[in-house]
This record gives sequence, C-alpha cells and structure tokens, in this order.
Amino acid sequence: MTGASGVGKDTIRREAVPGLGDLYYSVSATTRAQRPGETDGVQYRFLEVDAFRALIDEGGLLEWAEYVGDFYGTPLEPVEEALAAGRDVLLELELAGARQVKQRLPEAIMVFIAPPSLDELERRLRGRGTDDDAKIAKRLARAREEIRAVREFDYVIVNDDLDRAVRDFEAVVRAERVRANRLLDDQVEDFLREGPDEHDA
Amino acid sequence: MTGASGVGKDTIRREAVPGLGDLYYSVSATTRAQRPGETDGVQYRFLEVDAFRALIDEGGLLEWAEYVGDFYGTPLEPVEEALAAGRDVLLELELAGARQVKQRLPEAIMVFIAPPSLDELERRLRGRGTDDDAKIAKRLARAREEIRAVREFDYVIVNDDLDRAVRDFEAVVRAERVRANRLLDDQVEDFLREGPDEHDA
Repeated sequence: MTGASGVGKDTIRREAVPGLGDLYYSVSATTRAQRPGETDGVQYRFLEVDAFRALIDEGGLLEWAEYVGDFYGTPLEPVEEALAAGRDVLLELELAGARQVKQRLPEAIMVFIAPPSLDELERRLRGRGTDDDAKIAKRLARAREEIRAVREFDYVIVNDDLDRAVRDFEAVVRAERVRANRLLDDQVEDFLREGPDEHDA
Repeated sequence: MTGASGVGKDTIRREAVPGLGDLYYSVSATTRAQRPGETDGVQYRFLEVDAFRALIDEGGLLEWAEYVGDFYGTPLEPVEEALAAGRDVLLELELAGARQVKQRLPEAIMVFIAPPSLDELERRLRGRGTDDDAKIAKRLARAREEIRAVREFDYVIVNDDLDRAVRDFEAVVRAERVRANRLLDDQVEDFLREGPDEHDA
C-alpha cells in the first residue's frame, strides 16, 4: 500500500483491516519525531538514527528509504515469520520501498492510493496542520513523483469517497486470496474427491 | 464464470449482481428444453436446433459448445454493445466456451466456481431432481474435466459457504475494476491536477 501523506492510507487500513481476517500489519521503523498521540510500536517503532543504521547494516530491513529528512524501514523478521505462518502481510510503503519489496518478493501485490487531485491533497495536508509550508511542498513533490509511477502498481484506488475506497481495498485483499495462482494442489485434490460410487467412464 | 451444473453459479450471480452496479449479464442461447419456471430470455434464450445453427453460420455467437446433447452459446451483438458502452459483462460459460472467449477477448477475467468436492456436487445434483442418473454421471465427468483445467482460470472460488462465495465473487469484480491496467491517462491527469499555487521545484 503506497500513497502520499494525507491521502488517507492509515484511515483506509484501519477501517478495512478488521473485515479482512488474519492479516499481519507490519509496523515500520522510523527516525522521525514521535507526534502527540502516537505510541512506540503502534504507528511506528521509533528509533534513533544510529539504531536505524545498525539495523540496515545487519540486513534486518526488508526495505528502507529516506524521506523528507527521516529514515523509514520495514523490519524483516516479523514479516518473514508471518509469511512462514501462511498469513497475509500488509505493508505501508513509500514508492522506493515498494519497489525494493517487489524486487525481493515478486509475488507482492502493489496497491496505490491516489488523491482525487494534488489540489485536494494539499488541502488535506494543510487541514491536518502538522507540517509547515516547506514540508508540505516536499510532500506534494513526492506525491507528484509517485503518481507518475502509478502504472507500476497492480491496483489504484482513488480516495475521493472513504467508504468506497475502504470497500475497494477490502475487495482487492479478498480477491487476491482467491487468485488461482494461490491454489494448492491439495485443494484441487479436494475438489476432485469422490466417494466409492465413482462415475469414471 | 465457469463451474459445474449444481455448483451454485446461478445463485452466486443472482446474489452478487445487485451489489455490483452496472454489469451486463449475458443471457445464453440454448437448444435444451425449457424447464418449469424458466422464462425465454431470462434464464436462457431458447432456440430450435436449426435457429441455433443459423446463428453459428452468421458468426453471431461469441462462443458456443455442445454439452450433454444440447447447444449453448453467447449471442455476440449485445456483448459488443455493452462493452462499447463501457459496461462490464458477465458471462456464465462451460470450459470450452470460456476458452473461446479468452482467445477472442484476452482481457476477459476467468472465474471458476468449484464444488467443495465431487461427492458434494453429486449430492446437490441429486437433490435438485432435474436429471436422471445418466445425465448426472455426464455432468460429474464434465465437472471432473473442468476442475483439472482450474489453473487456466484467474480466480477460483469454492462454494462451500454461499455467503462467503458471494462476497468473494463481488470482491473479484470490484478489485478488477480498480486494476491499474484499467486506469486511463485522463484519470492520471486528474490525480496530478494542481491549482495556480504550484509547488514545482
């Protein structure tokens, strides 16, 4: 899941996840300042720059990127554990991170959350009131760059109507779960199961 | 949408379609006998064998097949009209027909509705009480052949729980509507729309 700051990724995820059954939401590590109301380990795992760099050096990140002066990354171990247990994993990533994950895990499904327009995105960022003008300008420049890469994604959900965007996101996860390429040979054997009263020619 | 007689295709379609907005459900033509409660033009367009053959000769069918002694086919014209109007089209097809459509319309999405097992499918067919033993045996042989081709499909929905199967089918249609490859250049232009207060570097 990729999309600009302010486009509504967090909201869509929070509204959609309860309806999606067993889904592991990966908590990113970041060096950015903790905001009022945020809890370490919930919105992000907040790290000092040195600790973050150590994690990079250990190969402990599935992907990482620097964004508007801060580092963001996905701790590898919990993702590997969830996938090994057969769980779906939801990652919220910047474009650079999404590209790294797609390279390492080609079966990953890339969902882009688009704003109705950059105009509307700017209104939302200003309404949030957490960023100064310079930071908003940087976020909009990044958003523009990400939108230009939209065709690298598998799905594009426009967040012009939150309810519809949430249902579209749920639909993407549900649909991907019934993709034929996820079907196991054992399941096909189940479909073919017959009793002793066989009808083979 | 493909799946054995008795697997629940009709029920899934009837329950799912009202929630899917503008979707054109193609009514197949067939030479099989009209069953009690069926209306010409609703479940099927019922044709005499001669009229069906004339339609084949005119190139008026998107696909057609013979199944258990009867002909089934999809009239081409209403499908072309619906697609030209930008509508999604839902076809309910046997395996041979689904393959013909995929060849002529490679962008078609193939959904397979699988029974929990052939055992359970046989119970449902017997419960329906419309077919004699010989016809049931033929339907099961056909179902077995279709299941063996299941990996040709894009999605596989197991109808072991009707509510879940309906929601999965709705999810597939919703998700396919937000596929990035359906995104128009005009829509990307909309995302990039900015007011006079530009933030270009």
